[in-house]
Amino acid sequence: MKILFSLIAFFSIAAVNAQDDSTVIKKITDDVLINGKAYEYLRVLCKEVGPRLSGSPQAAKAVEVTKKMMEDLGADKVWLQECMVPHWVRGKKEDAKIIYAGGKTYKLDVTALGNSVGSGDKGVTANVIEVKNFDELHALGEKVIKGNIVFYNFPMNPTYINTFRAYGEAGKYRFNGPSQAAKYGAVGCIVRSLASNVNDYPHTGVMGYNDSFPKIPAIAVSTLDAEYLSKALLNRMMKQVFFRTNCQMLDSVKSYNVIGEIKGTEFPDEIITLGGHLDSWDLAEGAHDDGSGCVQSIEVLRVLKALGIKPKRTIRAVMFMNEENGGKGGDKYYEEAKAKGEKHIFAMESDEGGFTPRGFGIAGPKDVYEKIKSWLPLLKQYGIEDIHEGGGGADIGDLKKLGTVLSNIAPDTQRYFDVHHAATDKWENVSERELKLAAAMMASLIYLGDKYGL
Amino acid sequence: MKILFSLIAFFSIAAVNAQDDSTVIKKITDDVLINGKAYEYLRVLCKEVGPRLSGSPQAAKAVEVTKKMMEDLGADKVWLQECMVPHWVRGKKEDAKIIYAGGKTYKLDVTALGNSVGSGDKGVTANVIEVKNFDELHALGEKVIKGNIVFYNFPMNPTYINTFRAYGEAGKYRFNGPSQAAKYGAVGCIVRSLASNVNDYPHTGVMGYNDSFPKIPAIAVSTLDAEYLSKALLNRMMKQVFFRTNCQMLDSVKSYNVIGEIKGTEFPDEIITLGGHLDSWDLAEGAHDDGSGCVQSIEVLRVLKALGIKPKRTIRAVMFMNEENGGKGGDKYYEEAKAKGEKHIFAMESDEGGFTPRGFGIAGPKDVYEKIKSWLPLLKQYGIEDIHEGGGGADIGDLKKLGTVLSNIAPDTQRYFDVHHAATDKWENVSERELKLAAAMMASLIYLGDKYGL
Repeated sequence: MKILFSLIAFFSIAAVNAQDDSTVIKKITDDVLINGKAYEYLRVLCKEVGPRLSGSPQAAKAVEVTKKMMEDLGADKVWLQECMVPHWVRGKKEDAKIIYAGGKTYKLDVTALGNSVGSGDKGVTANVIEVKNFDELHALGEKVIKGNIVFYNFPMNPTYINTFRAYGEAGKYRFNGPSQAAKYGAVGCIVRSLASNVNDYPHTGVMGYNDSFPKIPAIAVSTLDAEYLSKALLNRMMKQVFFRTNCQMLDSVKSYNVIGEIKGTEFPDEIITLGGHLDSWDLAEGAHDDGSGCVQSIEVLRVLKALGIKPKRTIRAVMFMNEENGGKGGDKYYEEAKAKGEKHIFAMESDEGGFTPRGFGIAGPKDVYEKIKSWLPLLKQYGIEDIHEGGGGADIGDLKKLGTVLSNIAPDTQRYFDVHHAATDKWENVSERELKLAAAMMASLIYLGDKYGL
Repeated sequence: MKILFSLIAFFSIAAVNAQDDSTVIKKITDDVLINGKAYEYLRVLCKEVGPRLSGSPQAAKAVEVTKKMMEDLGADKVWLQECMVPHWVRGKKEDAKIIYAGGKTYKLDVTALGNSVGSGDKGVTANVIEVKNFDELHALGEKVIKGNIVFYNFPMNPTYINTFRAYGEAGKYRFNGPSQAAKYGAVGCIVRSLASNVNDYPHTGVMGYNDSFPKIPAIAVSTLDAEYLSKALLNRMMKQVFFRTNCQMLDSVKSYNVIGEIKGTEFPDEIITLGGHLDSWDLAEGAHDDGSGCVQSIEVLRVLKALGIKPKRTIRAVMFMNEENGGKGGDKYYEEAKAKGEKHIFAMESDEGGFTPRGFGIAGPKDVYEKIKSWLPLLKQYGIEDIHEGGGGADIGDLKKLGTVLSNIAPDTQRYFDVHHAATDKWENVSERELKLAAAMMASLIYLGDKYGL
């Protein structure tokens, strides 16, 4: 009887908790959908600050603006965490054209890849060798490649339902392609934009040089012009391609992560971090990538404060600097956490766009994953269909070394790579309801993680 | 032993079938995502045809264009099904303003409600009585309402995660509001646009008069101006509102449903219908509502033909005419099916926008629902999370009387009412991947329904 009684008591408590949790999550979600400021925060970040590549004046302004947002919502403490960041600048002129026999030309829509060296004003003029992948490149070798421009025409696979899978597969050509081409004596590199749609917007993104080979200029070409160029190469009248970039890497500059926190009432030394990255590429407003993740994280603090929810543990919203072309903000956050011996129990990143939330990824011990997964029924009615194993994000990844359970919000992925790193990644292309609903789900999972511990 | 053997055989066949089905569904989905024409069909419907309200020249052009699309993809038979449709026209001038003391005015963004009578050029000028709902209206009664304009300011509830629920709740003010106001002597009616966002686009939509009361002019005001007007009513300097519409209902005209079919090889008399509605409101391109449903239905025929899948049963794609302001196409399709004694086993409608597919609704006997639900594991990897009870659509609803199992594709609902019935419902606001993925899921469920019967 005693056992039975205990069981009944246990289930009763569990039931009450589930009911309480359900009520709190409904309050959180309602408040975010009715009174939430995420969309207005995002407007400010996109329209009043604008593109904010690391080291730029706009990145500095974004630091000030988000610091003020968190002060205004009443965070217990808001501070800047200094870090040195690379300062790459696009420079003024970047252009490209196909040159046909007789002097006729066709303008290509291109943009320099992030961190690449410029060609200088004289540009690069050479024959173009198209390859579908690295195997083709290696097979052609120095004999064919030397003195030419290599054009990687590897499309994102449209049949992968999760578009991040296609991005991962195609991404190596953008990141490693230039040096792999330079290994065989290429003088320039053109990469098909990593985009899931076909139009004339080039998509930039980071590349990295292998110091064993010459650093050659590298550009992304719009998907439409990638298809055009591929056809032009079959035309005997096509001679060469000219392209010109004036980007350069300047000296590193001082910048900051922006951190706001609500102090825990019971276990203030246990830290729960959530964040996005504050820097963006320079071509657009960085609305989905990753203004969304930033404003959602700020919104989590806002709704907790607005509803008077006092977390047991310390909740930190972090605007990480320099995710796009260096990761220095994430590095610094980890290093300081480690140096200070901070106890980071849980970290969540939002860096997959401000779209309808559909799931969470969790990277941690099996039992912790199972515990978090047991909360799924509380979130299902809001469209969270899935809590899966494996998760995290570029900025919080190192915290794993401190034993932190990592997570990421996983929104619908269909539209992300239409706009990612392109001029179309702007505020107008974010849905207010989608952005807010995801923020509400982040706040709800953070609430549960704080309440029950991990 | 025999029983055991039979069981093994049964499970083996089931396993082989599941594997086959999985392979076919992958082929269907891959082909739709790689070679699918739904997005291009939609471009034609939006950009080359444009807004296509019943009775308009564009509606007639849409009939021709979609007929040709189905002929071109090789449908076994394509024909037009004649029906008479109401012919409501907006007329040229529609405008509204708030009049302040001293003659100052504020322009309101408005549009006439579909099927409403016009005010004529002289317009309506009167005091405005704002009500939140019908209870308030009834409480005020004739004493307060008579001679005035009633303004229904009932917002779509942002806390409903499924936005159709909020639309349903608010929709009665648009449809019934004018006559309910006229009952108490109102001279005009203003309805807050049924929109989930706040901006300056008015959203039209159908209304219906109750013949017991005078027919008064009725307009929708943008959500932004609904909020402005509500505030202005607290301002002692505000006097009246003027609005003017020149819409009118002309004589009914001849129009058509457009039907394309692939004849069944084994059970040609068993018909599976899928469709969307070809007419749209006149303010925009009807991209989500419901160009998407039309082109997805055509795409289902295309992919079956392209992959050489020969259905056992007859598959029909139907472009229904006049869903928006009369439903005459749906009526006609049902009447003819009934008169001919056709055996309609399954019907699916797509009329909730061309967004990421997340589920299907099914209305039919419990055992049939369970059978269809058992196919869910085949669709999960494509993002279909749910097959729920209850479903159908305005155009296929009557088929239930013939014993037809009804269904609808249920896409993500967060963005639909941002654009629904407003000038923003255009091709650019449809995502190619989302549209195609939903078409692939429709084709897959149709494939299974055809293969196994219902």
